[in-house]
Amino acid sequence: MKKILIIGIGAGNPEYLTVQAINALNEVDVFFVMDKGVAKEKLVALRKDIIERYVKDDGYRIVEATSPERRRDVADYLTAVEDLNRDKQRVFERLISDELSDGECGAFLVWGDPSLYDSTIRILDAIVAGGKHEFDYEVIPGISSVQALAARHRVPLNHIGRSIEITNGRGIAEGFPSNVDSVVVMLDSQNAYRHLADEDLDIYWGAYVGTPDEILISGKLRDVMDDIERVRAEARRTHGWIMDTYLLRKRGGV
Amino acid sequence: MKKILIIGIGAGNPEYLTVQAINALNEVDVFFVMDKGVAKEKLVALRKDIIERYVKDDGYRIVEATSPERRRDVADYLTAVEDLNRDKQRVFERLISDELSDGECGAFLVWGDPSLYDSTIRILDAIVAGGKHEFDYEVIPGISSVQALAARHRVPLNHIGRSIEITNGRGIAEGFPSNVDSVVVMLDSQNAYRHLADEDLDIYWGAYVGTPDEILISGKLRDVMDDIERVRAEARRTHGWIMDTYLLRKRGGV
Ligand SMILES: C[S@@+](CC[C@H](N)C(=O)[O-])C[C@H]1O[C@@H](n2cnc3c(N)ncnc32)[C@H](O)[C@@H]1O
Ligand SMILES: C[S@@+](CC[C@H](N)C(=O)[O-])C[C@H]1O[C@@H](n2cnc3c(N)ncnc32)[C@H](O)[C@@H]1O
Repeated sequence: MKKILIIGIGAGNPEYLTVQAINALNEVDVFFVMDKGVAKEKLVALRKDIIERYVKDDGYRIVEATSPERRRDVADYLTAVEDLNRDKQRVFERLISDELSDGECGAFLVWGDPSLYDSTIRILDAIVAGGKHEFDYEVIPGISSVQALAARHRVPLNHIGRSIEITNGRGIAEGFPSNVDSVVVMLDSQNAYRHLADEDLDIYWGAYVGTPDEILISGKLRDVMDDIERVRAEARRTHGWIMDTYLLRKRGGV
Repeated sequence: MKKILIIGIGAGNPEYLTVQAINALNEVDVFFVMDKGVAKEKLVALRKDIIERYVKDDGYRIVEATSPERRRDVADYLTAVEDLNRDKQRVFERLISDELSDGECGAFLVWGDPSLYDSTIRILDAIVAGGKHEFDYEVIPGISSVQALAARHRVPLNHIGRSIEITNGRGIAEGFPSNVDSVVVMLDSQNAYRHLADEDLDIYWGAYVGTPDEILISGKLRDVMDDIERVRAEARRTHGWIMDTYLLRKRGGV
């Protein structure tokens, strides 16, 4: 039997690794590292740093594979991601059958937490459901960017007794949901918070949270949104890529 | 200057501790451990285990304080929690002024992640805003029960490109929100999922997740809800207390 570990490595700071994740890393024979082109070079390097830093024996292999890219010419987001996941599934299947022997343990290192806006679990599920590959798999949770953001801003995600929504840029562009007063937005490349300038909201924004490049800005949305947009554009230009997240909260709650 | 650390210790497994949290624990002079009566004895013991397991030098003190209880005779939940937090604030202020010297570092160990349904950040904020106590404070994120639940069930929290709501028993009792298809429910002592038996939902339920007493049940809500209710009642009877969380997801999504 083969074994696959999906290991959450936290969303930036190498010290977000848990003891469970470190123990898991030390069980691994083969690390599958997905390369995603220039923009994500840094994230690949960070994964290798984590392996070097935390794995005691050097009896492991690193297998790099080029991660398929989401096709930008497919209009519908869901279809594009489903296509992408099907392509990734083929890559994963090849890795598992060609690069991992029976009795060995393979691992995918997932940025942040594997349960949040990541398809690794979904893809392994699909492979198992397909019935052509047999393996055990396990998921190790990690510190997500949502928690890293809240910790760095020292802010609770929820108001007392109230709900939180976690959404993406597309979601928040449709308007602030009526049934919650805290919304965390990930995967927003369009500064969608601008649509909400007329609402009475605080924003807690963070880019590269937990890394040496971290930038944090918070305040009343209307007052700071121009700053955020400018700083974000600058940072993106400087680094060549950006990862940022923000919490929007109705003012006046506790 | 005094320093306070709010350290997330993860929601059950002592191996959920991050390297950052362990380093933080090793900086601490005084651990403030809040005792919450019989039901929570186990959680206090777990905190002490974590301190013993991860702190190298024994040059620290543990100060126990009785945590005020939420008054059950106050009808309004928000008022009751606000009252409770005001009582807690007085206890925290006493601890910080009487038990911590200038230049020392004190710590509160928070179950799971400090940003999620926990008032420690809120209370320290209120103390700082009060202006009578001066200290620096820092928040260290931890693995929340939400992530632990998802990892143990090996299930993504969101469908592709879709939003997630995190709510409590009161929130979900009002009905399944229309704008999301994944809802995580915490703090539900009333089996509120029963209200949703007519909807086409899957449930991923977990109690004592990440601990040796962990119980996991999943399936179509209608098919497994009686099991969950029975198992939950039994576990509660056996242990004298329970902590459980669940993910509800619309069926048919990806
Ligand atoms: C595909 S999602 C993966 C999320 C990841 N699984 C997690 O738990 O954080 C990528 C998005 O996460 C957010 N993100 C990840 N790491 C971040 C960081 N260090 N700082 C700010 N945002 C981050 C950004 O919104 C980015 O668009
Ligand atoms: C006051 S909230 C604190 C949440 C915590 N800060 C966290 O990040 O998980 C307590 C609720 O968390 C959930 N919970 C905490 N630990 C849990 C565990 N190990 N298993 C299942 N649910 C848990 C339960 O819903 C419980 O009612």
